[in-house]
Amino acid sequence: MSSTKVTASAPGKVTLFGEHAVVYGEPALVASIGKRVYVTTELRDDDHVRIVASDLQVPGLTVTFTGEELIVETDYGRTISAVAYLKTAIDVVSKYLGVFKGANIVVRSEMPVGAGLGTSAAVAVATILSYSTALGYALKKEEVARLGWEVEKLVQGAASPMDTSITTYGGVIKVKLLSGNDYEVKALPRVSDLPIVIGYVEREARTKDLIAKVKSLKDRYPEIVDRIIRTIGLITEMAEAALIGSDLITLGELMNVNQGLLDSLGISNRRLSELIYAARSAGALGSKITGAGGGGCIIALAPGNQDAVEVAIRLAGGHAIKTSLGGPGAMVHGW
Amino acid sequence: MSSTKVTASAPGKVTLFGEHAVVYGEPALVASIGKRVYVTTELRDDDHVRIVASDLQVPGLTVTFTGEELIVETDYGRTISAVAYLKTAIDVVSKYLGVFKGANIVVRSEMPVGAGLGTSAAVAVATILSYSTALGYALKKEEVARLGWEVEKLVQGAASPMDTSITTYGGVIKVKLLSGNDYEVKALPRVSDLPIVIGYVEREARTKDLIAKVKSLKDRYPEIVDRIIRTIGLITEMAEAALIGSDLITLGELMNVNQGLLDSLGISNRRLSELIYAARSAGALGSKITGAGGGGCIIALAPGNQDAVEVAIRLAGGHAIKTSLGGPGAMVHGW
Repeated sequence: MSSTKVTASAPGKVTLFGEHAVVYGEPALVASIGKRVYVTTELRDDDHVRIVASDLQVPGLTVTFTGEELIVETDYGRTISAVAYLKTAIDVVSKYLGVFKGANIVVRSEMPVGAGLGTSAAVAVATILSYSTALGYALKKEEVARLGWEVEKLVQGAASPMDTSITTYGGVIKVKLLSGNDYEVKALPRVSDLPIVIGYVEREARTKDLIAKVKSLKDRYPEIVDRIIRTIGLITEMAEAALIGSDLITLGELMNVNQGLLDSLGISNRRLSELIYAARSAGALGSKITGAGGGGCIIALAPGNQDAVEVAIRLAGGHAIKTSLGGPGAMVHGW
Repeated sequence: MSSTKVTASAPGKVTLFGEHAVVYGEPALVASIGKRVYVTTELRDDDHVRIVASDLQVPGLTVTFTGEELIVETDYGRTISAVAYLKTAIDVVSKYLGVFKGANIVVRSEMPVGAGLGTSAAVAVATILSYSTALGYALKKEEVARLGWEVEKLVQGAASPMDTSITTYGGVIKVKLLSGNDYEVKALPRVSDLPIVIGYVEREARTKDLIAKVKSLKDRYPEIVDRIIRTIGLITEMAEAALIGSDLITLGELMNVNQGLLDSLGISNRRLSELIYAARSAGALGSKITGAGGGGCIIALAPGNQDAVEVAIRLAGGHAIKTSLGGPGAMVHGW
């Protein structure tokens, strides 16, 4: 038989407002971006799963596994990490549907892996959608999002549903941690295509350690840090209104204020700060760290001057990704 | 007769905590530094006043005036500004004492003029002390401080008594704006010699404009900016306790948090940010903007690693001044 070949894709994400504060019950705004992860599944006649991660920001990698055995032909830490999401996604889908078939799977990413752009959630969700579709099933978005979250929890031990929600549905969501590790996720009205530039530098610290750093500061100076966190929450609420009203000037100003507060929590560093100021000098309406900080990404709101901001970020020593906010969620491409 | 020659000096200052927030009623901590302005007065037999500003960070300058006529032999904006304080100080003292005599006056500064280190107040106070002593009067500190404030108000139109207080008394003071433009000034217990490094870059904005910028942000986002300002006030209160208790670790951490909040108010820029992060990388316990921002100075708390921090600031493109906090106030040297 000529085998079925299904490509699905899912977008990356940025946190627009509220990172770190979200850990303490404040709302956060998270948006999909125009850069995506593509996963193509071609079913095999045997029970082998062959994964080709041809473009996960490493020169090329082939992984083969049968049952529990995982053979990695080239060893690059981050890609392996992405592969873990992919393999777990296949396991989770097989278990959920009660069907397992071998497959050749090709992953391609338009984003750097491990930069905080939600690539792991995008890999998980695109794999779930691609593999389940290849198996002949049409999962609902709710199912895809839930299974994706399960994958993240299995690989990481714990995870918020934030990344898997946004990569499944796209657009902009408002997330709030409720008591007992539950999250409230609310979709915002679709925003028109907002041009942004993402700046990226190598991370110097891990998300876990940065969250612990903020917690330690909060433990030592509760009165001060609580106020800063609450202020970030207020900024996020105002930013939601500005986003819905397409008030980009306000949105940019609020990004800048939020950035100072993130800096006050000790999670910025010299290189991120250089990118942020370079973007503003080049005319960005606002710029801030996106995600945990400590290296990783910054986001600059750059309507009408994306090219200038891109150049400025490069000159300041960062990688620059021109894209837009709020693009479509996970989707199946022709098969 | 062999003329009397009197040298008086007065220290520069840094704002440790609370700049900008002080405008809105929060406390600020201001400290004298080890760098000083020296003013030498030699009375003349005629009514000419000849000012030689030999070291106000310009190659040399001679100014002569008689009554209302001011002759400037070299025109450098900032020095002229310093000379205005000097000339007004002589006028104010003459009026206060009811005596005027011509004099040759030599000014020498160990600090850059116009960097926000309070050189104008130091020039005013050192001139008052030098000229009045040369005239044979022994003014009290209270009188010197009050006359110095008067000079600042006459030259600038409006002034807080902060700079003239700290340069007169030395040490560390806590300043709070009361209703009706009154200030509460409280001296803190003497601190032991705290090594700092001041980093200096050319200013890109004027104090007046930076204060207006914060006010505009506050008008547009009152709920957010009020919280940030109040949080700076709390930090200042905690810093006062840390300073009195010689808890330098806490002091440094609070400087870093305060810095983020200043950044959130929009008064930092890329160059200041580079200096701040460079100082921290070199081991400073804390670093922040001191004064209005927009270029100007940063201060780094650097016990045990002043040299490393000095080099780091220079490599980051700033001028570096190694000095200490809380040195003596205005004084008359041998005559």
